[in-house]
Amino acid sequence: MSVLVVGSVALDTIETPFGEAEEVLGGAAIYSSVAASLFTQVRLVGVVGSDFPQEHIDLLLRRKIDLAGLKRREGKTFRWSGKYGYNLNEAETLETQLNVFEDFRPEIPEGYRDSELVFLANIDPELQLQVLEQVSAPKVVTCDTMNFWINGKREALLELLKHVDIIILNDAETRQLANEPNLVKAANILRGFGPRYVIIKKGEHGVVMFTSSSVLSVPAYPLEYIFDPTGAGDTFAGGFMGYLDTCGELEEANLRKAIVFGNALASFVVEEFSLRRLARVHLGEARDRFREFKRMSHFEEM
Amino acid sequence: MSVLVVGSVALDTIETPFGEAEEVLGGAAIYSSVAASLFTQVRLVGVVGSDFPQEHIDLLLRRKIDLAGLKRREGKTFRWSGKYGYNLNEAETLETQLNVFEDFRPEIPEGYRDSELVFLANIDPELQLQVLEQVSAPKVVTCDTMNFWINGKREALLELLKHVDIIILNDAETRQLANEPNLVKAANILRGFGPRYVIIKKGEHGVVMFTSSSVLSVPAYPLEYIFDPTGAGDTFAGGFMGYLDTCGELEEANLRKAIVFGNALASFVVEEFSLRRLARVHLGEARDRFREFKRMSHFEEM
Repeated sequence: MSVLVVGSVALDTIETPFGEAEEVLGGAAIYSSVAASLFTQVRLVGVVGSDFPQEHIDLLLRRKIDLAGLKRREGKTFRWSGKYGYNLNEAETLETQLNVFEDFRPEIPEGYRDSELVFLANIDPELQLQVLEQVSAPKVVTCDTMNFWINGKREALLELLKHVDIIILNDAETRQLANEPNLVKAANILRGFGPRYVIIKKGEHGVVMFTSSSVLSVPAYPLEYIFDPTGAGDTFAGGFMGYLDTCGELEEANLRKAIVFGNALASFVVEEFSLRRLARVHLGEARDRFREFKRMSHFEEM
Repeated sequence: MSVLVVGSVALDTIETPFGEAEEVLGGAAIYSSVAASLFTQVRLVGVVGSDFPQEHIDLLLRRKIDLAGLKRREGKTFRWSGKYGYNLNEAETLETQLNVFEDFRPEIPEGYRDSELVFLANIDPELQLQVLEQVSAPKVVTCDTMNFWINGKREALLELLKHVDIIILNDAETRQLANEPNLVKAANILRGFGPRYVIIKKGEHGVVMFTSSSVLSVPAYPLEYIFDPTGAGDTFAGGFMGYLDTCGELEEANLRKAIVFGNALASFVVEEFSLRRLARVHLGEARDRFREFKRMSHFEEM
C-alpha cells in the first residue's frame, strides 16, 4: 500500500523564543511525507527550485519516499519565514516567497494514479481538485486547508469537500469554514459539506474527531519543552494517514488509533527545529508514546 | 462518610450573550456542595445575610446538605455580578459586594470536626488555614484559590499548601502560582509546595491531573450549548470530592474516576443559569455521561 501526498516543499526561516534557524527544510508535504513514511510507502508530489539542497533529497530517499512526483524547476524553492512568541500556538508570518511554487500545477505521475490513500495538504483548493481528477479510484481522500482559501476560494473549497472523506483542520479554521463559533455545531456543518469525518487540531489542547454518531477526544502530549511548533499539524496528518494505510479498512477503531499515532509523531517534531527530531524517530518510540497516550487517557469503568 | 465544604454563598447577577439572571443562587460553596450531595452527605460552612431567600435553603435541605455550619447574620448576602462575552471562558466582574462575607470567619461546628474529606473553596488562604486548625484529622484536604490571593497573600497560600493533598485550579492560576508558563513544569513546581495531586481545569479543553509519576487528561464534554459557565469549576470540584468520598481510599484509580464524575456534573451546570440544571441532575444521568466520557476517550491497544 502507499499514501499519495501533495503539497508544499519549503525552506523555512524560523524564530522562536528559544532560537533561530535559517533556510531549514520545511513545507506541509515534507512534514507529512516523512511522518507517514514511518508506517508505509509515500508518493510525494511537489516542486522545488534548482537551489534545493541535495541533503534534503537524501533525507527523503533514506525514508524510501518515492520522489517521481517531486519536480525540480529552474528558480528558487518556496520560502517561508515566521516568528513565534511565547504563545507557541500561533506563528506570525514575516515573509512568504512563493518562487517556483507560484505556478505549481500538480502532475500526478502515471505510477501514482492508482493511489488509494490521498492526502491533500494545504494548497489552493483548485489544485487539490486537479489532483483528484488525476487519481483513478482513491479509497480515502483527506484534506487540509487554511484561512486564506476559506476566505478567498470558498466555492472551490466547497466543491472539493464533496469528494473528501476526512477533513483535518484547526479549531479557528473549523469555526471560519462553518461560520459557527461552537465547535460541535461547526463540525456538523462541515460534515454536511461532504466529509464523513471531521478532525480538529487544537494545538496544545489535543485533537477531536467528530463522526455522525461519535466523538473522540485525544489530549496533546504534555511536553516540558516545545522548541518549534512548525509542522506539528502536518506531521499529525502524515502520521495519521501513514498508520491508516496499514489498517486496511476505514473503520472508526482504526481512525482512532491513527489519530493517536499522528498525535505521537507531532509530539516529537516540536522538540527541535525543522525535521531534525522527526527524522530520527523510530517506530519503537512512536509505539511507546502511543502507550503513554493510552495510560494518560485511561480511567476504569464505574 | 461526608465532605466538609467551606466557601462563599452568593447571590449572582449574570449576563451572558444568551440572557440575563438577577440575584440568583451562587457562590463556590453552593455549587460544590450541591454537586457533592449527589454522591454523599455534605457539611456546609458559610455565611448568608438576613435577605437570603428561604427557597435556596429549601433547595439545600432537599439535597440533605447539613446546614449547621451555615451562619445567618444581620445584613445583606454577598453579591457578585458578572458578564460573559462570546468567549465563555472568562467572566468580566462588574461588581462585588462582600456584605456579610466581608468579616466571615469560618467556625467549624463541633459535629463537623471529625470530617475526613475537606474542600476549601476559593477564599482567603488565611481563612482556609483557620478551617484546617479546627478539623481534627482530615484524610483528604483539597483546595482551590484565585489570582487575587496568589498575588496578595502568597505567603499564607504557600503555608496552606503544606497541608493540602490536592489542589484544583485553572491553567492561568497554575502558571501564576508557579511563575512558570509551561503547565507540565508548573504542575511539578506546585507539587513541590505540598500537594501530591495537581488538578488543572482548562475550561472547554478539559482537565489534567499531574501526580509524581503520571498524567491524566480528560476532555470536557463537547456541548452544543453553553448557556452560563458560572460555577462550572466549583461544580467539578464538588462532584470530584463527593464521588471520592464514596471510594474509601485515595488511590489514583479512584481519583481518575472522580475527575470524570466532576467533569460530568460540570457539563450539566453550564446548560442553564445558576443551579437550575444541576439541582435536577440525578445519579443515572451522571453515570450516563460518565459512560459517554469513556466512549469519547477510548481507543484500542495497538
